[in-house]
Amino acid sequence: MTYQAPYKDMQLLVAQAYQQQGLDAIDAMQGFDPELANAVMEEAAKFASGVLAPLNAVGDVQGCRFQGGHSQKGNSQKGKVTTADGWREAYQQFAESGWIGLALPEAFGGQGLPKYIAQPVNEMWLSANLAFVMFQALAQGGAEILLNFANESIQQRYLPKIVTGEWTVAMALTEPNAGSDLGALNTKAIPQSDGTYKIKGQKIYITYGEHDLTDNIAHLVLARTPDAPAGSRGISLFIVPKHRVTDDGTLGDFNDVRCTGIEHKMGLHGSPTCSMSYGDQDDCIGELVGELNQGLMAMFVLMNEARLSCGLQGVALGELGYQRALAYAKERTQGTNNQGEKVAIVEHADVKRMLLEMRSETFALRALGYQIAAQIDASELAIDETKSNQSKKDRIALLTPIFKAFATERANIMAGQVIQVFGGMGFVEETGVAQIMRDARVTTIYEGTTGIQARDLVFRKVRGDQGKALSELLADMTQLVRTFEADAVFAAMAKETQQVITRVTSLLDSHLLNRDRDAASLQAVSVPFLEAMGILCCAWQLFNVLAYQQTEEHIDASYRQNISALSAFYGAYRLPAAMAALKVVENAGLGLSEYEF
Amino acid sequence: MTYQAPYKDMQLLVAQAYQQQGLDAIDAMQGFDPELANAVMEEAAKFASGVLAPLNAVGDVQGCRFQGGHSQKGNSQKGKVTTADGWREAYQQFAESGWIGLALPEAFGGQGLPKYIAQPVNEMWLSANLAFVMFQALAQGGAEILLNFANESIQQRYLPKIVTGEWTVAMALTEPNAGSDLGALNTKAIPQSDGTYKIKGQKIYITYGEHDLTDNIAHLVLARTPDAPAGSRGISLFIVPKHRVTDDGTLGDFNDVRCTGIEHKMGLHGSPTCSMSYGDQDDCIGELVGELNQGLMAMFVLMNEARLSCGLQGVALGELGYQRALAYAKERTQGTNNQGEKVAIVEHADVKRMLLEMRSETFALRALGYQIAAQIDASELAIDETKSNQSKKDRIALLTPIFKAFATERANIMAGQVIQVFGGMGFVEETGVAQIMRDARVTTIYEGTTGIQARDLVFRKVRGDQGKALSELLADMTQLVRTFEADAVFAAMAKETQQVITRVTSLLDSHLLNRDRDAASLQAVSVPFLEAMGILCCAWQLFNVLAYQQTEEHIDASYRQNISALSAFYGAYRLPAAMAALKVVENAGLGLSEYEF
Repeated sequence: MTYQAPYKDMQLLVAQAYQQQGLDAIDAMQGFDPELANAVMEEAAKFASGVLAPLNAVGDVQGCRFQGGHSQKGNSQKGKVTTADGWREAYQQFAESGWIGLALPEAFGGQGLPKYIAQPVNEMWLSANLAFVMFQALAQGGAEILLNFANESIQQRYLPKIVTGEWTVAMALTEPNAGSDLGALNTKAIPQSDGTYKIKGQKIYITYGEHDLTDNIAHLVLARTPDAPAGSRGISLFIVPKHRVTDDGTLGDFNDVRCTGIEHKMGLHGSPTCSMSYGDQDDCIGELVGELNQGLMAMFVLMNEARLSCGLQGVALGELGYQRALAYAKERTQGTNNQGEKVAIVEHADVKRMLLEMRSETFALRALGYQIAAQIDASELAIDETKSNQSKKDRIALLTPIFKAFATERANIMAGQVIQVFGGMGFVEETGVAQIMRDARVTTIYEGTTGIQARDLVFRKVRGDQGKALSELLADMTQLVRTFEADAVFAAMAKETQQVITRVTSLLDSHLLNRDRDAASLQAVSVPFLEAMGILCCAWQLFNVLAYQQTEEHIDASYRQNISALSAFYGAYRLPAAMAALKVVENAGLGLSEYEF
Repeated sequence: MTYQAPYKDMQLLVAQAYQQQGLDAIDAMQGFDPELANAVMEEAAKFASGVLAPLNAVGDVQGCRFQGGHSQKGNSQKGKVTTADGWREAYQQFAESGWIGLALPEAFGGQGLPKYIAQPVNEMWLSANLAFVMFQALAQGGAEILLNFANESIQQRYLPKIVTGEWTVAMALTEPNAGSDLGALNTKAIPQSDGTYKIKGQKIYITYGEHDLTDNIAHLVLARTPDAPAGSRGISLFIVPKHRVTDDGTLGDFNDVRCTGIEHKMGLHGSPTCSMSYGDQDDCIGELVGELNQGLMAMFVLMNEARLSCGLQGVALGELGYQRALAYAKERTQGTNNQGEKVAIVEHADVKRMLLEMRSETFALRALGYQIAAQIDASELAIDETKSNQSKKDRIALLTPIFKAFATERANIMAGQVIQVFGGMGFVEETGVAQIMRDARVTTIYEGTTGIQARDLVFRKVRGDQGKALSELLADMTQLVRTFEADAVFAAMAKETQQVITRVTSLLDSHLLNRDRDAASLQAVSVPFLEAMGILCCAWQLFNVLAYQQTEEHIDASYRQNISALSAFYGAYRLPAAMAALKVVENAGLGLSEYEF
């Protein structure tokens, strides 16, 4: 059983996002319409199902191999990493088909597609083989950093290689004592007379820090120069290739960038997570990217992108899990009906509940993610920086931590439900669904934990602008939801969604913006607040689709009916949890400081 | 870092359960007071921390080895299973110390301790090494089946070996097409002229079905005789030893009981999960246990016991995870405080929240489990079957599915939180906390899935007695909670708990007992109903401990303060989810039947 791209959803939600974000009115979007999107999705779906999905279990079972080996003279390496069987070939095919540069500039060999088209394509990659395709987000993010911050020389030497996939990118941020707190990092960058820097330090958790897929790897390394200020204001960003790059862009000597080991992880076995040593033999050269001591700023650009990509991983794993669970539930019989006939477990009401929880939430989160992607296109491609454009950016900034944390948290819950649908079979590795749960586990941790997303939401995105972006969002939601107030099916759900909005509004005054409340007690309820916002955003997106499909006559009746049913289900089964989470926010701080650990 | 038994909690909750269930007034309990319990716990704690806990990771890493081998003549076997290094020695020590027969009759070599003392001891085993100690519940359950249903000859030959641990017990229920629906099983039992039966069939998922810990294994096998009625009314129970047992109890020939493979599981690697073939060479002899076609009845006795044990696994894994997360959170520094000093992450409010979620719910569920154990003692040891005794049994029957399903579901959530506290380190297998999550995953599946527990709760335990046992429980809760109505700290929590109780009461009439509602829509909300009852039971238990500690002057102030704080935290952070789940119950059926999969 393999992954199939959920076309119908993707086509509907892509077309909807295109229309609702006003992309049809933007000149730069001419030629990039949903029709093109459908053609691209069709090609991507073949590659995802045909090439990537079958390698997913192979990567999980084989993992990556690390060979310590011995240091040899010249440009050889101490630590070699070999990926699973078939990955090297699949990588070449992936790169040659131009998928890596899908949404990167044509000037450097990319296809220059807008993000709203890249979004469903990326979702397919992530469902089909998350561990494999992690280099894709690294290439995308790395290229954007270089486009925004690097000098022309670096751009010319590196970007064409990265965009075409000839080289991969690695992001070297974390150190053993600097995880969420990057300000604590210690890697050194010593200025040389020729304007380059000697890099020296140890990094951990470097995804694809070393591998056998390409001849070179461009490491983006955070480090400190000798006289840099302490903390996060003294961090600079350097590009540090595994093999040096000569002026004409060809490969030079080995650059003293060594992998010292790979992690034995719970999941994502196929993707090497490397410990790296830079400048072990004092021979590691890097070039500064952007301004001195402004490294975190570049990383923040990347981070927003990475967080949205991570939220999409949640959607993708939810979809993959749902497909597996549904197929099994249709096939597996257990028990009999009133006529004494064996029934497939998809007929069991409790199994239906689990399947619809996955189906409805994945659908709503997909809708949210596609809207955000289209909104980024709209905000980037609009010509003048109008007020409404800033509003768009603020909206994206507000939704980013919600989408990242909520989609990944739910993917974890859903992955558990997939195993539950499989019963004992799910606990057996051969079935392949345990992998989804193991893979999903890190998505709530990397690119900023759920706690960090929630803090970002409450303190930067809400408090930071006195609740303006949130209030605008709530007003938009209200306007939409009100149109369902008298709806034959959705009146109750509309009323309850409106109650959640009202509650958030009142908590904004009493708690979130109330400077008399201490930060710790707010922080303790920031994750419940984010959870409530996640559910509310899902309900909002479902209303949005319901409204949209009323205007689209071409949608077939059974699909239309299913969207109504899953929306009603979401309102009945998931929406109540939003009010409960807001009740927790109201209770901020109780019992917390009194307990002595 | 290793497991330490949570003594203070255990001592408090054991003493409380003993007193509140009136065990001090029962003659048969003389000598089995909390003082003895403390002495036993002290010994068990040493064994758990010193011997079992260090082998937990060993079992996870090494797993079990299966050797297919070749069939040889005589009594040899095709399939051998070898457990991890050190397990055989630990088993011998465990058996020789008398732990297996702790709560089994002295007449057969056991120590005859009441269940309320065995409960904390079992919790320790389960925390220290769940995969290892699974044979313990099998021995306990198997012995109880033989005590209740087997003839004297079987009892005399088998019980002394099982109670002392010389042989282990395996339960052979599941077949590939008969999982939750045991009525579909196909294994045959052909009557022989000497009164025995020839057994022939395949079973799967047999825990410790084959291993190298003992010389013999007693399999309790569900099978059908040739003229048995179809479905669950035609199932009989047989005892089928790996090696035959002669009349004097010594080992005879190999009994054609073969392991054909072991599962490659997500967790519980140390415990062999076997596929078994009985009578592959038509030479497998079994003896009937109990009456013909009454096999499921015997299994139901076992199942209730196994479900309570499984709920205790939830508590035990929650405790283990909490200990690991707390130790890490105290040690790991990240970020700085207002004075610029590095702070341990236990000081971060969101980490505190996660720790207290684990701490408060594990504590409350432990309290619930200990009360149930003491109540079983009370119901079994009281001399006459009075009305109040039947009430006790009904109460236990009502609480069993709640305890089983809720404790294990929460253990899964908590295991995820443990990894979240560890961050990236938690995703790395060497840290050891991924194992907790992998191990926990099956606890919501085996011994009846959460869906099956919820169905049992709604249809058998609530509808089955017209809501009598539930109403009595709610009345008891109300009586207790009312005493906190004017409490300085807990008035609000008491009020909200009372609201939950009131809501359950009204749903009892409108939904649970309302015969106009179709079964499928109720079944679809049975898990949310169980979840609400789980949270309510936790709140009830916390009030119970708060009331108890008011009367006990010897409890030290800081511990007393912590129990207050964790109870207040539970009321603020977890109780709201009960109302949300009940709202889902109220919405029963919405969207469910309209969706076409």
